[in-house]
Amino acid sequence: MSYTIGIDLGGTNIVAGLVDEKYRLLDKAAVKTQAEKGFEYITDNMAKLTATLLGRAGLQKEQVSSIGIGSPGAMNKATGTLIFAGNLDWHNVPLGPAVEKKTGIRTLIANDADCAALGEFVAGAAAEDESMALITIGTGVGSGIVSGGHLFSPAGSCAPELGHVTLIAGGEPCTCGRRGCAEAYLSFSALIRDANRAADVTPDSMLAQLRERGEALNGKNIFDCAKSGDPAAKGLVDRFIELMGEFLGSVENAFGVRAIVIGGGISKEGDWFRRRVYDAMLPNVFAGETFAPALRMAALGNDAGVIGAAALEQYQ
Amino acid sequence: MSYTIGIDLGGTNIVAGLVDEKYRLLDKAAVKTQAEKGFEYITDNMAKLTATLLGRAGLQKEQVSSIGIGSPGAMNKATGTLIFAGNLDWHNVPLGPAVEKKTGIRTLIANDADCAALGEFVAGAAAEDESMALITIGTGVGSGIVSGGHLFSPAGSCAPELGHVTLIAGGEPCTCGRRGCAEAYLSFSALIRDANRAADVTPDSMLAQLRERGEALNGKNIFDCAKSGDPAAKGLVDRFIELMGEFLGSVENAFGVRAIVIGGGISKEGDWFRRRVYDAMLPNVFAGETFAPALRMAALGNDAGVIGAAALEQYQ
Repeated sequence: MSYTIGIDLGGTNIVAGLVDEKYRLLDKAAVKTQAEKGFEYITDNMAKLTATLLGRAGLQKEQVSSIGIGSPGAMNKATGTLIFAGNLDWHNVPLGPAVEKKTGIRTLIANDADCAALGEFVAGAAAEDESMALITIGTGVGSGIVSGGHLFSPAGSCAPELGHVTLIAGGEPCTCGRRGCAEAYLSFSALIRDANRAADVTPDSMLAQLRERGEALNGKNIFDCAKSGDPAAKGLVDRFIELMGEFLGSVENAFGVRAIVIGGGISKEGDWFRRRVYDAMLPNVFAGETFAPALRMAALGNDAGVIGAAALEQYQ
Repeated sequence: MSYTIGIDLGGTNIVAGLVDEKYRLLDKAAVKTQAEKGFEYITDNMAKLTATLLGRAGLQKEQVSSIGIGSPGAMNKATGTLIFAGNLDWHNVPLGPAVEKKTGIRTLIANDADCAALGEFVAGAAAEDESMALITIGTGVGSGIVSGGHLFSPAGSCAPELGHVTLIAGGEPCTCGRRGCAEAYLSFSALIRDANRAADVTPDSMLAQLRERGEALNGKNIFDCAKSGDPAAKGLVDRFIELMGEFLGSVENAFGVRAIVIGGGISKEGDWFRRRVYDAMLPNVFAGETFAPALRMAALGNDAGVIGAAALEQYQ
C-alpha cells in the first residue's frame, strides 16, 4: 500500500491529510496559518503536520509517494514556485522545493480551487464522471476543471478563473477591477449587495425587517427569506438561479464537461436548488440535451482540497 | 520523409492538401462538396482527392501516415463517427472509417474550427506559442483551443463553442436559441444587424447612404465607413472592439492561453484592429499584464483548416 499527503494552505488554517491509494482520507491534522510569520514558519509547519500524520499512522516517509499542496494564487507547477498568493503576500517563493527539502518527500503544488475540483473528481460528487467543472459559490466564485484525465491548469496563468468570465458586459463592478464578471452576480457578496438594495426600497420586506433587527444579510438568511415567500428575496433568488443557468451553460459550451459540481457555501441549499439551476441551465447548453452535463452538489466539503492535493501526483 | 493529408470538408468545397513533416503545404486539390449527393459520393471524392495528391507527388499510400478530416459538427474522435453536421444533414455517419477503407490510409476526424486552430498553431500565427485560442469572426464566431500540447476538444461535446458563451445575459437573440451570446455581438451578422438599426435612425450617415444606393451593408463596408469617419459606423466599431476586449479577456481567464489568434473575415482588417482590440482586452485579463496573452492575426487564411487536419495525428 502506498500513501500520499494532501495539504490545504488556507488563509486561516493549514490542513494536512493522509490519503490511501483509493483516495480515502485516513487522518487529518491542522494548525493555524499565521501568514504574518512568513514562509519558513509556514513550510516548517507543513513538515511538522506531515511528521504528525506519519507518526500517528506508524508510516515511514518512504511509504508516502508524494505530498501535494493546494495554495491560493498562481504557480509554476514545473518548478514548484508560487508566483504570487495575494492573501499571503508571497511572491516567487519556492513552496514545493522547500517542503520537499524539509520532509524528504517529493512535493507538488497546485491552485487550491484546482485541488478542490480534483478532490470531487477522484472521491466526491464527480467520482463516476469522465470530466467535470467545479464551480464554488461563496464570498467569490471559484472554479476548477478536470478534462481528458487531468487537471486543466495551464502553465503561466491563473486559468481557469471562471468567476472572472463576463456575464453581463459593462455590468456590476467586480473585485478584480472589471465589470460584469460572473462573480459580480453569482457570489454571496453579490447577492448580499442586491439584497441590501432591495431592502432599501422595500421596507416591508422580510429582508428589510431582518436588517432592522440588526441582523446582517447573508447568503443563508436571504435564501431563507425567499423560501419563506418574501417577494423581494424570492425575486433575487429567482434572478440568481436564472443567471446561474446562463453561466453554467456558458461553462459547458466552453469546456464540454460531463458533470458540473456546485460547491462552496451554496451547496448547503441541496437538491431543490440543484434541480432549479439544472432547469435554468438546460436551454443554455449548445445543442441542448444531447450534450447537457449532469449537475451535482459537492460531496466532500472542506476535505475536497486536501484529497485533491493528495491526488496531484496522478492528475497534474 | 513522411507525409500527411489534410481534408477540409466545407459547405461549398472539399479541399485536400498534402503536407510534409514540417507542416508545409506542398499541394492542394479541391472539388465541389455537393452535399445533396450524400455520404458515399462525398467520401468517394475524398478518396479521389487523396489519389490525385499522391499521383501528382509520385507518392505511394504507404508514404502517407494519416489523413485528417476537418468537418463541421460534433464527432466521436475515438470511433471516427460524425454525430451530426447541420449543413450536411448527416447523423452518426462513420466518416473516418469510410475514408480509411476507401484509401487504405489511417483516417482521423475533428471539428473544422479545431483544425483551423491547429493549423495556425503548427504553421501559422501561433507557431512560436506554447498554447493558443483561435477566435474566428465571420458570419458567426468560431473557436478552437490548443493547450498542453494538444487540441482541447473534449469527447462527447461540441466544446469549445466560445461563440456561445454569454457576453450580455438576456441580450440580443442568438442563432443558437439563447440570448446574449458572444456571437450575437461579435459576428459580422451582429454588426450588420446593428448597422442597419443605426442607418434607420441616422439617414445622413454614410451607412444609410450606402444602403440608399442599393448596397447591402457588410462587415467590410461598415468598417470602411468607420475608417472614413462616419460617426454612426465609428460608434458601432468602437463598441464592437470594446466587446471584443471583454470577450477575449474572458477567453483568457477561462483558458489561460499564451496567444489569441483572430481569424475569419475580420482578420483582413490587420494591425490597427489588432492593436485596438489588444488595448481593449488588457484590462479584462485577470491579474492583468502578468498573464496577458499575445494577440495575433491569423496567417494562413483558408489553408489553416487543411494544414491543421493534416496535423491531427500528432495533436489530437
